[in-house]
Amino acid sequence: MNKNIHTFIGCDNSYEDSRIVIFGAPFDSTTSFRPGTRFASAAIRNESFGIETYSPYQDKDLLDYNIFDAGDLELPFGNPERALHDIEAFVSEILKAEKVPFMIGGEHLVTLGAVRAVAKKYEDLHIIHFDAHADLRDDYLGVTLSHATVLRRCHEIVGDNRIFQFGIRSGEREEFLWGKEHVTTCKFNFASLDEIVKQLAGKPVYFTLDLDVLDPSVFPGTGTPEAGGVTFVELMEAVSKLSALNIVGLDMNELSPVYDQTGASTALACKSLREILLYINQ
Amino acid sequence: MNKNIHTFIGCDNSYEDSRIVIFGAPFDSTTSFRPGTRFASAAIRNESFGIETYSPYQDKDLLDYNIFDAGDLELPFGNPERALHDIEAFVSEILKAEKVPFMIGGEHLVTLGAVRAVAKKYEDLHIIHFDAHADLRDDYLGVTLSHATVLRRCHEIVGDNRIFQFGIRSGEREEFLWGKEHVTTCKFNFASLDEIVKQLAGKPVYFTLDLDVLDPSVFPGTGTPEAGGVTFVELMEAVSKLSALNIVGLDMNELSPVYDQTGASTALACKSLREILLYINQ
Amino acid sequence: MNKNIHTFIGCDNSYEDSRIVIFGAPFDSTTSFRPGTRFASAAIRNESFGIETYSPYQDKDLLDYNIFDAGDLELPFGNPERALHDIEAFVSEILKAEKVPFMIGGEHLVTLGAVRAVAKKYEDLHIIHFDAHADLRDDYLGVTLSHATVLRRCHEIVGDNRIFQFGIRSGEREEFLWGKEHVTTCKFNFASLDEIVKQLAGKPVYFTLDLDVLDPSVFPGTGTPEAGGVTFVELMEAVSKLSALNIVGLDMNELSPVYDQTGASTALACKSLREILLYINQ
Amino acid sequence: MNKNIHTFIGCDNSYEDSRIVIFGAPFDSTTSFRPGTRFASAAIRNESFGIETYSPYQDKDLLDYNIFDAGDLELPFGNPERALHDIEAFVSEILKAEKVPFMIGGEHLVTLGAVRAVAKKYEDLHIIHFDAHADLRDDYLGVTLSHATVLRRCHEIVGDNRIFQFGIRSGEREEFLWGKEHVTTCKFNFASLDEIVKQLAGKPVYFTLDLDVLDPSVFPGTGTPEAGGVTFVELMEAVSKLSALNIVGLDMNELSPVYDQTGASTALACKSLREILLYINQ
Amino acid sequence: MNKNIHTFIGCDNSYEDSRIVIFGAPFDSTTSFRPGTRFASAAIRNESFGIETYSPYQDKDLLDYNIFDAGDLELPFGNPERALHDIEAFVSEILKAEKVPFMIGGEHLVTLGAVRAVAKKYEDLHIIHFDAHADLRDDYLGVTLSHATVLRRCHEIVGDNRIFQFGIRSGEREEFLWGKEHVTTCKFNFASLDEIVKQLAGKPVYFTLDLDVLDPSVFPGTGTPEAGGVTFVELMEAVSKLSALNIVGLDMNELSPVYDQTGASTALACKSLREILLYINQ
Amino acid sequence: MNKNIHTFIGCDNSYEDSRIVIFGAPFDSTTSFRPGTRFASAAIRNESFGIETYSPYQDKDLLDYNIFDAGDLELPFGNPERALHDIEAFVSEILKAEKVPFMIGGEHLVTLGAVRAVAKKYEDLHIIHFDAHADLRDDYLGVTLSHATVLRRCHEIVGDNRIFQFGIRSGEREEFLWGKEHVTTCKFNFASLDEIVKQLAGKPVYFTLDLDVLDPSVFPGTGTPEAGGVTFVELMEAVSKLSALNIVGLDMNELSPVYDQTGASTALACKSLREILLYINQ
Repeated sequence: MNKNIHTFIGCDNSYEDSRIVIFGAPFDSTTSFRPGTRFASAAIRNESFGIETYSPYQDKDLLDYNIFDAGDLELPFGNPERALHDIEAFVSEILKAEKVPFMIGGEHLVTLGAVRAVAKKYEDLHIIHFDAHADLRDDYLGVTLSHATVLRRCHEIVGDNRIFQFGIRSGEREEFLWGKEHVTTCKFNFASLDEIVKQLAGKPVYFTLDLDVLDPSVFPGTGTPEAGGVTFVELMEAVSKLSALNIVGLDMNELSPVYDQTGASTALACKSLREILLYINQ
Repeated sequence: MNKNIHTFIGCDNSYEDSRIVIFGAPFDSTTSFRPGTRFASAAIRNESFGIETYSPYQDKDLLDYNIFDAGDLELPFGNPERALHDIEAFVSEILKAEKVPFMIGGEHLVTLGAVRAVAKKYEDLHIIHFDAHADLRDDYLGVTLSHATVLRRCHEIVGDNRIFQFGIRSGEREEFLWGKEHVTTCKFNFASLDEIVKQLAGKPVYFTLDLDVLDPSVFPGTGTPEAGGVTFVELMEAVSKLSALNIVGLDMNELSPVYDQTGASTALACKSLREILLYINQ
Repeated sequence: MNKNIHTFIGCDNSYEDSRIVIFGAPFDSTTSFRPGTRFASAAIRNESFGIETYSPYQDKDLLDYNIFDAGDLELPFGNPERALHDIEAFVSEILKAEKVPFMIGGEHLVTLGAVRAVAKKYEDLHIIHFDAHADLRDDYLGVTLSHATVLRRCHEIVGDNRIFQFGIRSGEREEFLWGKEHVTTCKFNFASLDEIVKQLAGKPVYFTLDLDVLDPSVFPGTGTPEAGGVTFVELMEAVSKLSALNIVGLDMNELSPVYDQTGASTALACKSLREILLYINQ
Repeated sequence: MNKNIHTFIGCDNSYEDSRIVIFGAPFDSTTSFRPGTRFASAAIRNESFGIETYSPYQDKDLLDYNIFDAGDLELPFGNPERALHDIEAFVSEILKAEKVPFMIGGEHLVTLGAVRAVAKKYEDLHIIHFDAHADLRDDYLGVTLSHATVLRRCHEIVGDNRIFQFGIRSGEREEFLWGKEHVTTCKFNFASLDEIVKQLAGKPVYFTLDLDVLDPSVFPGTGTPEAGGVTFVELMEAVSKLSALNIVGLDMNELSPVYDQTGASTALACKSLREILLYINQ
Repeated sequence: MNKNIHTFIGCDNSYEDSRIVIFGAPFDSTTSFRPGTRFASAAIRNESFGIETYSPYQDKDLLDYNIFDAGDLELPFGNPERALHDIEAFVSEILKAEKVPFMIGGEHLVTLGAVRAVAKKYEDLHIIHFDAHADLRDDYLGVTLSHATVLRRCHEIVGDNRIFQFGIRSGEREEFLWGKEHVTTCKFNFASLDEIVKQLAGKPVYFTLDLDVLDPSVFPGTGTPEAGGVTFVELMEAVSKLSALNIVGLDMNELSPVYDQTGASTALACKSLREILLYINQ
Repeated sequence: MNKNIHTFIGCDNSYEDSRIVIFGAPFDSTTSFRPGTRFASAAIRNESFGIETYSPYQDKDLLDYNIFDAGDLELPFGNPERALHDIEAFVSEILKAEKVPFMIGGEHLVTLGAVRAVAKKYEDLHIIHFDAHADLRDDYLGVTLSHATVLRRCHEIVGDNRIFQFGIRSGEREEFLWGKEHVTTCKFNFASLDEIVKQLAGKPVYFTLDLDVLDPSVFPGTGTPEAGGVTFVELMEAVSKLSALNIVGLDMNELSPVYDQTGASTALACKSLREILLYINQ
């Protein structure tokens, strides 16, 4: 008898054969408002068996691709620096094997660990950032490593004009003022995405998707519901455009399964994961 | 038939005077993912007293029509074949009295019982099917009578080119491949509905509405939340077009009240039931 | 007036300096369907610290304005007439100081207390009413002071052609028939709002916002979920137009926090409150 | 009286044949803390089909007795005096037919309506009161008809030394001080019940059971959870002793089904109702 | 990199080395009242990482024993006979390897599959049954394979005086009457357990634990909450006595995780599983 | 110190007049399993208005004592060391004014901040610890400042034989082994409390109450539900015995209000807080 193996649906290929490596980063201890994102990756694996491997949107099937699900990292609660270090090490190992890391957060801070690793390998790294929040504070309640500062920290690594934000509809005045000087922000929607995609053709891109870019009506399972977000169809259209880019690493974060007891948010995350996997496997 | 004193609001007319007969089919034991639809008809009756009998959309009032609510069938849990048999017998009785049966599921499998009865009376029966899922599998985990196979079973009764699906956004690759040969599928929305309605003018039509065709944001009370669905207004527009058809039987299914503790899904089902009753009473 | 230390975010100015005075009217004992609105004002204050004071929509910040939050009135449960009397007295005091009262309900009946006070000061008062329900019944289960009769009672104060309703999508036939003679009703949306705003230029206007004008998908936290409502963006566009008017009093009501355990409804109410405060502070 | 087809399990006998008449009094608009008891009687009927008619405790079966379930009264929200009047009229009718009224609340205030009727028929009426709260205030927030004053109002009808309270573990100091002079209070448990039952032998007794006398662990479905209550077994032992008395009317109140989404509180209420019916049918 | 393996905490030994084999039987389609037990085994694995492997009750640690967790069977929804067949086959395989099967239900019907296999190997099989419900009906709504008939079906296999029930507090009159002739029933508690354990010394025993034997206050996560049950400490004391027996197979069933959103029921099931594993590993 | 207008009921005295100072320490970022304790102090204040100031258990009333509620500390998420520093500073200030600090957590780690301050003032400090968990690990996932290590850290301050634990029913084997050498542990209950209280007569004692010492049935609102705990009455009896001691500081922690949507856990915490305040104000 074999041991019980637990993966995202259709992602049970061997590590060697796979170009994409999924893993969970269940960390949420800096979350300010309502925690719970640490349960996201486990919930996504469990619920993935409620969706199909086939996408009628793309007429493609996960079963036709090789994807490895490495399970979850064991991250120390209450120690963001060490958690980021562990994430960076794991992503570096994946990159060394010439594979694409796809991290499932956790809170948004986990992105920093991955970006540190990816930026070491790819000198001219650009970041595409879908989110409701600017995440550009310099510190948050005196803490510099936080979900609310994560893109500011990423900016310290990749520099000016390398970060492109979409869907942003919340932040302090100072974040928007600072942002005007250092990053490109498309407020509320994806209006300028076509243009940015053209501009980034051929360059290495890290894609970070904070699922709260979605309207809370379609994605209530998040600690910071922010009215006025995009629809699922709008998000998928935007994601489809990213398939033209050279995505060298990516993440999806901020699902808090326990905040949506209907299960709709987790189901949406599963479907989004399937669609993104199929888009970047062009 | 005796009156069920506990009726849907405004549907307390006598059986003899009524052209439409509502009844509940509280059966859900083949549901794969998350059961609970067996509570739908009771919840709809209870909550119907929170809505009005008057529709400002149509400027019509349920009080001006004769509708009979026959209560719920007592169906055996764990015995799909017998449950379908009981449904078929009950629908046949309604049809014999020259009335239109309107069944409240239950899981989608209950449709098969009704279609068996309706197809016996109407030789050239067509089916209009609103759903998120194709429901065209030949079997599901080795079981042939299942919510996931129900339209495939209906096809065995009505034959090729008699089933018209709308809003479908989930299914296995095989279902879509098979569907291309045998049924007409309009993916994601109602784009081709006008044309189909013209085509079916005068023909007997059974209408089956799986409420999960709606987006989970407007209808979270379902066991299989599938992102990317239609809005309530889009659904009502589509339903309004059906009033041009000769609807000889219909059902509404897959509400799971317990999965939406806000009550919004049940309230929507009540309102949809009122609107559909008024549209088909043209 | 003494300060309530526990305020809505950014509304901790002194009474003397403030042009707008927020207060809670936690009353819901006539609510027919599912009570809970009495918890709204406390929830809004608590959760307001989860949003920012800055609006990226208007590029304005609450910190640049003086607003006083007077806390909640203590209202007797089960005694609507006395509750309305206490609300009227409190609003009169605010008006005497030449300030604008902004009441947070509570069920919609609380509007009557405020309108009584405002109509005494402003002779030619007009009312703009956003709601899913007409609220024009003469009585409800034999009771004349009820959330379902509140605009009818307001009509007795301000008279014919002074009430303008938007977004209405539910009511008895009689309410709509009566309404045609006495008030202006824009069903389902804000189509005629531009025109009405022009018409009311310079006149004193009371604005009452029943949050259930929103679709239950974006605002499930209400006792009477009514499908087919407006989106948050549509509501904000409508509200922005009101900034051209002379708003002399206003309220926001019918949030029932406990019915939306995701917190999204309360968060939306907080954000709406911020946006309205910034729009009327032009 | 007409039959209500939707009855408590096993209580579908005719009015004429029945000695006990169950009815619902779905009223809760004076509830101070968290409303919801108006849904109790409907929930109890619905869920009663999840229990058996047979009691292994008493080796008796509801099917061997004649009990009539009259359905729910339609009571006006927001008008306690009229609601009490309607209850009194209905109870008087039952008493005139020499039957025993068994009312399902609703909030505890409904007891006053029944006691008014019962005290008119039985001169020397005594009241046995199981509750967590003394309910002996003279007024509550200036209101005299309230769940918090109901036993004080009953005392005005039956006079000194006629009320016997058990399980009381919450109240203002003034209530306990007043109570020492006018009623008999057994704090926390049923220690003195045997003695009181002896004392009341042969006298007419009204029994009012506020289910929050139970510990919130076994009965969380209540608006005022008060730690330190009795267990289900202790309650049933106490109830069994009442079978020695001449119970001429009774009620069970303060279940708020929506506050216990596990359903355990409603199920307990159903089981308690069955057991009480069997005990008083000695 | 290794694939993600998912077991109950401390049960990640190899099949060969293990004397006990845990597996999940996620089947619930005959459940009459409220389904959901099919999610139990997955929830127990997930949440097991919130408890310790060490028991301060027994001063023993799961890490000192070899236990294999085989994951979940894939069982066909809506086909009880086939599901039972698959369970029987799997249990037979475990028994052939001279190991002890420990099944995690699922609804109680799954016990029948295991008992069929165990009774084939052990001629003189006895069954110890902890439950709130007698489960002795001959049929339930016309269905013979049901959670409500499962011990009656087991009786057909093992015969008279082989089944010993404890904690039973619900059932139809007919079940108790039939039971008196054919099985031994200890109502409400474990009063006669010591004696029965002595009597069964040395004989092969199957132990089936329906967790609803517990009071709903400590175990609300079940579809049929039945007040008046045993405490966790009482259950553990009873289980400790079973360590004197020759347990050749066992199961734990009827956890419905979704009905207890506090997670306490699942946590209790995890802790019970640990304690039982340690007791039977004497 | 300035008054926090939003206080626990009956605790609105001036700082100067008060012997006891309540304050909240809303910190939970090292919580391993399910966070949420940071919302405890706010919830306790809000819900305290649902209980009375009078205790029928002690026949005492909070209104007869002077207690100051200082509101909540603002603690940095994700920075345990700084949070502990801020707590220590605040407690030191209270102690310097010769008052008794009563901290409302937050997760259990906050105790360390208070103990650091108290141990500086009282040389021979003893600690009484009620808890389900030993909390004696040396580190937890590599982190030394954690809710799971807090009593180990306290031991480093107060030394051997100064810590007395009660109700412990969970921990790793190593914790219990280490504990035998350095602390006194009473497993499962309060059996040895009388004796310990005698032993500590006259000595300065810090009392830390982890509310999860209670059984999850009476206190489900916690992130780590551990079956087999004490009842509310048992806890109150134990607390009453502490009134004989010289309590120089205390805390109550680990309430997670969002995990118990019935509100019973928060209500129990409010009642416990009232009772403890009255016991230590002998």
